[in-house]
Amino acid sequence: MIVGTQVVERLAELAKLGAYPQGIDRGLFTPTEHEARRRFAGWARAAGCDLEQDRAGNLFARRRGSRDGRAPIVVGSHLDTVRTGGAYDGAYGVVGAMCALEQLNAGGTQTEHPVEAVAWAGEEGSRFPMAMMGSAVWSGRLPLDTAYGLTDRAGISVRQELERAGIAIGVPLARQPVKASFEVHIEQGPVLEQKAKTIGVVTGVQHMSRHEVVVEGQEAHAGPTPMDMRRDPIRVLADLLPALYAAAAQRGRDARLTFGFIETLPGSPNTVPGRLRFTVDIRHPDALKYASLREEMNRLVHAALERHTLSGGIRCVWEAPGVSFDPACVAAVRSAAAALGYDSLEMVSGAGHDSCNVSAVVPTAMVFVPCAGGLSHNEAESALPGDLEAGANVLLNAMLSLATSATAAIS
Amino acid sequence: MIVGTQVVERLAELAKLGAYPQGIDRGLFTPTEHEARRRFAGWARAAGCDLEQDRAGNLFARRRGSRDGRAPIVVGSHLDTVRTGGAYDGAYGVVGAMCALEQLNAGGTQTEHPVEAVAWAGEEGSRFPMAMMGSAVWSGRLPLDTAYGLTDRAGISVRQELERAGIAIGVPLARQPVKASFEVHIEQGPVLEQKAKTIGVVTGVQHMSRHEVVVEGQEAHAGPTPMDMRRDPIRVLADLLPALYAAAAQRGRDARLTFGFIETLPGSPNTVPGRLRFTVDIRHPDALKYASLREEMNRLVHAALERHTLSGGIRCVWEAPGVSFDPACVAAVRSAAAALGYDSLEMVSGAGHDSCNVSAVVPTAMVFVPCAGGLSHNEAESALPGDLEAGANVLLNAMLSLATSATAAIS
Repeated sequence: MIVGTQVVERLAELAKLGAYPQGIDRGLFTPTEHEARRRFAGWARAAGCDLEQDRAGNLFARRRGSRDGRAPIVVGSHLDTVRTGGAYDGAYGVVGAMCALEQLNAGGTQTEHPVEAVAWAGEEGSRFPMAMMGSAVWSGRLPLDTAYGLTDRAGISVRQELERAGIAIGVPLARQPVKASFEVHIEQGPVLEQKAKTIGVVTGVQHMSRHEVVVEGQEAHAGPTPMDMRRDPIRVLADLLPALYAAAAQRGRDARLTFGFIETLPGSPNTVPGRLRFTVDIRHPDALKYASLREEMNRLVHAALERHTLSGGIRCVWEAPGVSFDPACVAAVRSAAAALGYDSLEMVSGAGHDSCNVSAVVPTAMVFVPCAGGLSHNEAESALPGDLEAGANVLLNAMLSLATSATAAIS
Repeated sequence: MIVGTQVVERLAELAKLGAYPQGIDRGLFTPTEHEARRRFAGWARAAGCDLEQDRAGNLFARRRGSRDGRAPIVVGSHLDTVRTGGAYDGAYGVVGAMCALEQLNAGGTQTEHPVEAVAWAGEEGSRFPMAMMGSAVWSGRLPLDTAYGLTDRAGISVRQELERAGIAIGVPLARQPVKASFEVHIEQGPVLEQKAKTIGVVTGVQHMSRHEVVVEGQEAHAGPTPMDMRRDPIRVLADLLPALYAAAAQRGRDARLTFGFIETLPGSPNTVPGRLRFTVDIRHPDALKYASLREEMNRLVHAALERHTLSGGIRCVWEAPGVSFDPACVAAVRSAAAALGYDSLEMVSGAGHDSCNVSAVVPTAMVFVPCAGGLSHNEAESALPGDLEAGANVLLNAMLSLATSATAAIS
C-alpha cells in the first residue's frame, strides 16, 4: 500500500518547477520540464529501474520482471502542463506510477512481467501545438516527422529540442509489445467529489469535436439603421444558443455543449457587428447520440443562416473519436478498487488523455480521483492526500493483477 | 443655388487631411484637424467673414447682417472624425454651411440677421472621450473645466492642446443669443436611399442608451463537467438574445436594439466561460416606448440571472434623452425642400449630433441626405454629388427664410 504523504511530497517537489503567480507553466522540453524529467529519472535510478528515452522524448523507467522477456505493463502520464497549469494534471499519474514501482520494491514483490513507469512527452500541446504528442508517436498514430516539424511560438522545433537534449533521434522507436497500460489522473470534473466517491473506474473517453461558426453581417450604425434593414449576425446566435442547448439536453445527461469563445467584430457597442465568430464544443460518450448531435448542430446553423439570409458556415476544427477502454483492464481497476474498499463510480472521461492513444494498440484503462470543485488547468487545481493515495493504490493493484497473471502477452 | 461640384471639391480637399489606408483619422486638435480648421478659416476670410474661435475651440465664421445686432443664425457641423472615418460625417455640414454663406455673397443677398458657419470642436469623442464636446460646452451642458480636463490616450489634455494652439482660454465664452440653428448631415442609415428620397426633414433624435451586462460563471472543462453541474453564463445569453429581439419588435419599427460587443473569458474553446460581458444599445423615438423597452430589458436580465442562479447585472453606461427639434425650424426645412422640388421624408435621427446640444438653448433642426448603403464611420462612406448639393441648398434656403424674416430675435 502506497503512503499518501509520499505522493503529496513528490507532487509538491514537481510543483515548484515552472511555478509563477498564475500557476505552473512547464511546457514540453523547457528547462523546468527537463528538470522534472531529471527528478523522475533520479527516483527511477534510486529504485533500481532501467531508464530509456525513445526518440519522441517519452521516458520509460523499467522494473524488470521474473520473466523479463514478457510484455511489460506500462503505467504513467505526463510531466508537461498548460501555461496556467496546476500541480496534479499529469504529474500525479507519473508520480503515482513511480510510487507503485517503489512499493513493489518495498514489499519485495517479484512480478512475472516487467512493469514500466512512463512520462509521455507533451500531452498538453501547450508549447508545441499537438496534444498527446509523445503517446501519439509511440502508438503509431502520428508520424515521427510530423512531430519533429512542430514548432513553438519562437519557431523552435521539437527536433531541435530533442537534439539539444542529446536524444538520439536516428534510433528506431522500439515498439516492444506491451501487455497492458494504466493511467491514474485527477477527474478534471466535479462528479466524483459531488457524489462522494473516491475512485472513478474509467470505461472510456467521450466522442468529442470542436467547431467554429462564422456569420458574416454588415456593419451598421446602431442608431439610424432600422432593424429590418440590418444584416445582424447576432440574430443567428439568438436562434442557435437556445436551439443547441435544447438539442444537447434531448440527448441525455451525458451530452456536453460548450460555447467557450464568442467574438464580435469590430466589437463596438454602437455598431451592428460585421462579423460574428464563436466556437461550439460537443461531446457524448454514445457514438450514435454524438453523431446525431453533430448532425443537428450543422442543420441548425444552416437553418439560422438561411432564416436571416446571412452568409457564413460551420467547420469542424478538431475531432477525436471516443474510446472504449479494454474490458479486462477496466475490470482490473474495478476489482482493485473493490478489494481496497474504496467507493467507486464507473465513468467516461470527458477529456482526452495519453491513454486514448495508447489504447489504440494496447489494452488500457484509467483510474480517476476527485479534484476540488472539478477545477483543472488552473492554479486552484487540488486533490486530497487520501484520494491521491487511493488512486495510486488502485493503480498498483490493477497493474499487479496483470503483471503476475499467467495470461499470454499481447504481441 | 449651390453648385454640387463646389461641395464635392472641398470635401475631397478635407478628405486628404488624416487619410490613411483604413479611412480618415482626424482627431480633435491633431495637426490634420488643425489644418482642416485653417482651410475653413481660409474660405471664410476669402468670403469676407469675421472669424472667432471660442475658448472651447468652436470656430465661427460670421457674415454680417444688415441689422447686425440681431441674433445670428448658426449653421454647421464638425471637422473631426472617428479613427476610421469617412469624408462626409461632419465635414459635409461644415462645407455645406460655408458654401451657403458664399452663395449669399454670390447672389448679393443681404440678410437682416447675421449668419454664421460653425465648426463645432470634437463631435466624435474619438480622441478625447466625450462626444459633442464643443457644442456641449457652448450650450452650457458641459462645464468648461470638465472639457479642459479630458485627456487622450497619451495623457494630453484638451487644455494643453488649446494652449498650444494659442486659443485664449481665459476669455469668457460669448454666449450671444442665437436665433436659430441648422445642421446638414449624411443620414448614416439606409432609409433615404432605400426609399429614394433626397432630403430627410429631421424632426428630432431618438432616446438612446447603452448598457453593459456582466454574468459571472465558473470556469470548467468542456469535457468532464456535466451540464447540470455547470455555472455557464452563456445560458443567460441564450435566454436574453431572443427575448430582447422580441421585446424590441413589440415596440414597432422605430425600436433599435444592438449587441455590438460580446466577450467570453477566458475565451478558450474547451472551457466554460467564467465570465460573460456584452453590451446592449437600445433606442426609440417615442419616450414611453423607449422607457418600457429599457424597463423590460432590465427585468429580462434579472429574470435570466435568477433562472440560472448566476450572479451579475446590468448597468447603464451612457444615456442620451431624445430631442424634439423646434417646429418652426423643422417647418423651415420642410418648406425649403418643397420649394426646391426635392422628395423629402420626415424622420428621426438615430444618432446624436451637435444639434442635440444646440437645441437645448436655440431653436434647431437638421437636414439629412442619403449616403450609400447607409454606411458611416467607415472609409466606404459616400454620398452622391446631387444629394450633397440638394442638402446644402435646403440648408441655405431654410437659413435664409429665418435670416430675413422680421420675427424677434431670441435672447
